[in-house]
Amino acid sequence: MGIYLQDIPLSEAKARLRMGLIRLNRTGILGKEEIALDEAALGRVLAEPVWARQSSPHYHASAMDGFAVRANDLTGAQPGHPRQLEMGSQAIYVDTGDPLPAGMDAVIPIEDTQPVYADAQPADPRHPQAILIRAALPPWSHVRALGEDIVATELVLPAGHTLRPIDLGALAASGASHITVCRKPRVAILPTGSELVEVGKAAQAGEIIEYNALMLAAQVMEWGGIAIRYPITPDDEPLIAARVQQAAEEADLVLLNAGSSAGSEDYSARVIAQLGEVWVHGVAVRPGHPVILGMLRRAIGEGAALVIGVPGYPVSAALTGEIFVKPLLHGWLGRAAGEDQTAQAALTRKITSPAGDDDYVRVVVGRVGSRLLAAPLSRGAGVITSLVRADGLVILPRGVQGVEAGAQVRVHLLRPAAEMERTLFAIGSHDLTLDLLAQYLANPADATRARRLVSANVGSLGGLAALRKGEAHLAGCHWLDPATGEYNLQAVRTYLPDTAVQIMAWVGRVQGLMLPAGNPRGIHGLADLADGEVRFINRQPAAGTRALLDYHLQKLGIPPESIRGYDQEEFTHLAVAAAVASGRADCGLGIAAAARSQGLDFIPLFTERYDLIIPGEYANNDLLAPLYEVSQNADFRKAVQSLDGYDVARMGEIVLQC
Amino acid sequence: MGIYLQDIPLSEAKARLRMGLIRLNRTGILGKEEIALDEAALGRVLAEPVWARQSSPHYHASAMDGFAVRANDLTGAQPGHPRQLEMGSQAIYVDTGDPLPAGMDAVIPIEDTQPVYADAQPADPRHPQAILIRAALPPWSHVRALGEDIVATELVLPAGHTLRPIDLGALAASGASHITVCRKPRVAILPTGSELVEVGKAAQAGEIIEYNALMLAAQVMEWGGIAIRYPITPDDEPLIAARVQQAAEEADLVLLNAGSSAGSEDYSARVIAQLGEVWVHGVAVRPGHPVILGMLRRAIGEGAALVIGVPGYPVSAALTGEIFVKPLLHGWLGRAAGEDQTAQAALTRKITSPAGDDDYVRVVVGRVGSRLLAAPLSRGAGVITSLVRADGLVILPRGVQGVEAGAQVRVHLLRPAAEMERTLFAIGSHDLTLDLLAQYLANPADATRARRLVSANVGSLGGLAALRKGEAHLAGCHWLDPATGEYNLQAVRTYLPDTAVQIMAWVGRVQGLMLPAGNPRGIHGLADLADGEVRFINRQPAAGTRALLDYHLQKLGIPPESIRGYDQEEFTHLAVAAAVASGRADCGLGIAAAARSQGLDFIPLFTERYDLIIPGEYANNDLLAPLYEVSQNADFRKAVQSLDGYDVARMGEIVLQC
Repeated sequence: MGIYLQDIPLSEAKARLRMGLIRLNRTGILGKEEIALDEAALGRVLAEPVWARQSSPHYHASAMDGFAVRANDLTGAQPGHPRQLEMGSQAIYVDTGDPLPAGMDAVIPIEDTQPVYADAQPADPRHPQAILIRAALPPWSHVRALGEDIVATELVLPAGHTLRPIDLGALAASGASHITVCRKPRVAILPTGSELVEVGKAAQAGEIIEYNALMLAAQVMEWGGIAIRYPITPDDEPLIAARVQQAAEEADLVLLNAGSSAGSEDYSARVIAQLGEVWVHGVAVRPGHPVILGMLRRAIGEGAALVIGVPGYPVSAALTGEIFVKPLLHGWLGRAAGEDQTAQAALTRKITSPAGDDDYVRVVVGRVGSRLLAAPLSRGAGVITSLVRADGLVILPRGVQGVEAGAQVRVHLLRPAAEMERTLFAIGSHDLTLDLLAQYLANPADATRARRLVSANVGSLGGLAALRKGEAHLAGCHWLDPATGEYNLQAVRTYLPDTAVQIMAWVGRVQGLMLPAGNPRGIHGLADLADGEVRFINRQPAAGTRALLDYHLQKLGIPPESIRGYDQEEFTHLAVAAAVASGRADCGLGIAAAARSQGLDFIPLFTERYDLIIPGEYANNDLLAPLYEVSQNADFRKAVQSLDGYDVARMGEIVLQC
Repeated sequence: MGIYLQDIPLSEAKARLRMGLIRLNRTGILGKEEIALDEAALGRVLAEPVWARQSSPHYHASAMDGFAVRANDLTGAQPGHPRQLEMGSQAIYVDTGDPLPAGMDAVIPIEDTQPVYADAQPADPRHPQAILIRAALPPWSHVRALGEDIVATELVLPAGHTLRPIDLGALAASGASHITVCRKPRVAILPTGSELVEVGKAAQAGEIIEYNALMLAAQVMEWGGIAIRYPITPDDEPLIAARVQQAAEEADLVLLNAGSSAGSEDYSARVIAQLGEVWVHGVAVRPGHPVILGMLRRAIGEGAALVIGVPGYPVSAALTGEIFVKPLLHGWLGRAAGEDQTAQAALTRKITSPAGDDDYVRVVVGRVGSRLLAAPLSRGAGVITSLVRADGLVILPRGVQGVEAGAQVRVHLLRPAAEMERTLFAIGSHDLTLDLLAQYLANPADATRARRLVSANVGSLGGLAALRKGEAHLAGCHWLDPATGEYNLQAVRTYLPDTAVQIMAWVGRVQGLMLPAGNPRGIHGLADLADGEVRFINRQPAAGTRALLDYHLQKLGIPPESIRGYDQEEFTHLAVAAAVASGRADCGLGIAAAARSQGLDFIPLFTERYDLIIPGEYANNDLLAPLYEVSQNADFRKAVQSLDGYDVARMGEIVLQC
């Protein structure tokens, strides 16, 4: 204890790192090595410019199959007055690529000649006795002159260039057989923590599957380095110190994962201070605070190794890679600075940010109508799916405390921009079939029909609100009108009064009570929830399932206040099921398939219609057409039907077009 | 002979290929394999969707270092009325990540508690006798509930997804230890041709260094396949047939390089027809015509292999890879269709195209002022540097016979769009120092100052014309005014009368006659060129060197018609030197360094000033600032000075600012 982190701004951390690199003489490339010019050179970075050793072509080469001639001999040739050239002295047959015979200065394609044979019998047109030619041609016609492509001594490729397939060809054409490339940085990755277990081992409560090292190693490989993964080291300070020292001997950079905050078992800073220097401990970046930057002295080898203490939360770990490891490797590889691809997009909802931090907000990006939209994802440092799902990062710099909904933000894209042009934004009620739909949309028989479905779960009313603001292509909705007992029609009329929409029936599904297996509390219906003991887990107010609950509670005369946990909210059926399965709650209301997926008991109570609401402007347009196709796909319908409590009888039916 | 190719449209060729794939049942992925979830999985493509096997977190985990409590016990706690919780029964110390002890439902961070010790002596704050808490908190505060990130059974990643570092983490978090990925396609690459020699061997006239196979292998690797390179096979039909059959047994796709046209030694189509089927022979694509598409029956194994006869010209070979091999591999890997990144740009000069072909035009792309410009590169199928230098491809579809200068075209980008924003377009006179300048601009000490110099060699007047049209950031110029004997001032006044420009002195250089070593024709000055025997090689009319020649010929009273080869033109000093070195010409006018680079004799005749002309709007702006810095860089000046006949005394001096 007693270590209180003093976070410093990111710019300051980068400046200290740069000073440290200068002091260690580690700012440029790490070294050069000569390698053979073969396919293993793909992706390597040239350490020196390559100047052509030979020209290409390195001789005057025929560019056609035909006859090498002297252009002078053809002067005056015309259709009516052909010139006759004798084979051998005046014309010589050449294939494409053959050297131009001495004395000749042009090639005439075989199809522009007329053979003259000694006897009447036609023979091999390459070897007549003479040829007739009916047009003059300039010298050097149909000849690839020496150096047409590359002239010896010319620059072929500059230093710092990352080699692509075509570059390998150009280097070979210019006479190179070996090339000098930048040595690959060696990066040691040390996972530490007594709570860690290897991938593939069963993890008990309190144990964590170690995958940060896997992720960091893959990042290092992607950025051109060599990753050296160490086994998990438990929280044993002398053992960690010994491993760190060993890593410093063999690597240019040591990534010491976890143990970098100030908790009771966080040894990293002490170990680094003991074996080298701590330059930075704590960077005001969110997520990711407890980053350590420093160096390790080598005991045996020359010089020093860089070290980065990487935070344990996976999103923090991955972003530490992006922010610190990637630029280090690029610099060490002599790579020209690669700017991020960026795009301007409108933020779909307000985000707030601590004023003191550079805040990396994960967003999904898609074009809805004419606008490119960025929808913020979960902010938790532990939510790795937020990075998996992210299309880009919005960086809110220090000093910015938040950005309003609708504001234009710059998104650093993590996917090709073209993907965002074929993205369907589904915002609204959560349903398990949306995952299946995403699968079918992504992999159609005709690849040009592939679509990416991005869904945000904000409940039925949240979806209608998104449609009203023009922020979604479709919204899942199952909103019961208490007056009529009808689904969705009234909600659409109320919340989208001025918008042309189509309501497409999607699935019928069964809602009911999810209970721990064996139903230990003996619950049989909604009336049993009001006993003050049963811990209920609810959905958020905009959710159709919440409306369904409220409708039936009212009919039964049960006051919401009488239900313990009525104010505990989750955003999806699966999250409610998980809360019950984990013992956080005794009961929840949701769909049968979610209960089944978590091994819960289920008491069916109601059937309901879950529809897709689609603004008229997108109905049947090219972007959404594959959605209509999937709704009629027999395989897809079968897969949905196989889920508990699902009915596809009306799937794809247009319930309302207004 | 006798095979006359009937080119078919690209769309028709693709349709026939697709029909063939359907018939062979080869349209989907080639197969699945299970691999361990480790860093080798990076870049692999999921063959099946991955559903979560376990939740993440898989238990309720403390999100802070602090005390696990029951939220109920804190009801009513206020700053002035703390609640005291007894250790063990009411509060239990937990580190971040520890499981929430049974019965507890929240965590209070240690910094929000006040320890109570049995004796007055402060001890370990994790183990007091009790804690005082001065604020209530809701249940599940500071707890990462089971399933917060991933709920078991949820979709983690869809089939067809290419794995990134972060995905490996998410898969591990969801309980995966092995994953099912698409089998990598195996591609055999067979270079054929008696004229071919291996990379690294000295090539004689008529011999060609074999690098298409290297390039194709690298393409296959880049697109996710396994490349199997065969040794060079000479033009021996039975031997080629035997190797092709062998390749068909072990590969999914055979690339048979060269021999695909209808020349005298082109066996490919016959061999394929004999061992399988030819579906397509000749595709109306430029460059690239003689492509063969077909199949090969297996003699030993099951099924068949695809085969592509790849044309021999390197640009054709590389584009055949892009057009046919890449989509095949993507389909076989189950990858979602990856659209090209494209951009709209204005064409800098007219291009014409055969009406019957899909024409792939290589262009360089850069932003000049507010306009993105695309400048066409050499069209030759043999000019591999045109692909190396290309930033993108403009595809002129069949039926389009040309596009006018200034028209907007869609460019399929081969480089990140951001690179084009830091590109300097230099259009004008050619000088050897531009290559050196490109090196220094690309690799500054401060990576944010890196610039890409793209230069097009169109002569001094061509450069001024480009500036007038707003198509360049700078133009190299050495245009002698015959009236005054002054360089560049008059030309700028004449050709850019309404434009504010800066003239920056760049280099002084020596122009003279380039002659074969030993000067076999005994040439001593311009007067010797008019003997009717000496074969001269000239520069194009817009070139400053051409103007220099004409100026002095006029002074000497030598009529241009008296010089043999006056109408033979090259576009650069190096190309002129190469023409002389290769025996294509006996003499040329150009700079000393170019002569020296090709081992030529040189007779110095004139010294001249080569300046950079920069429009006022770019002078000293952020984009061009690094150019001014390099002009003052001592290393750079030294490197220039070391070239024959160069003088840097006035480099960087502003000669005119108007």
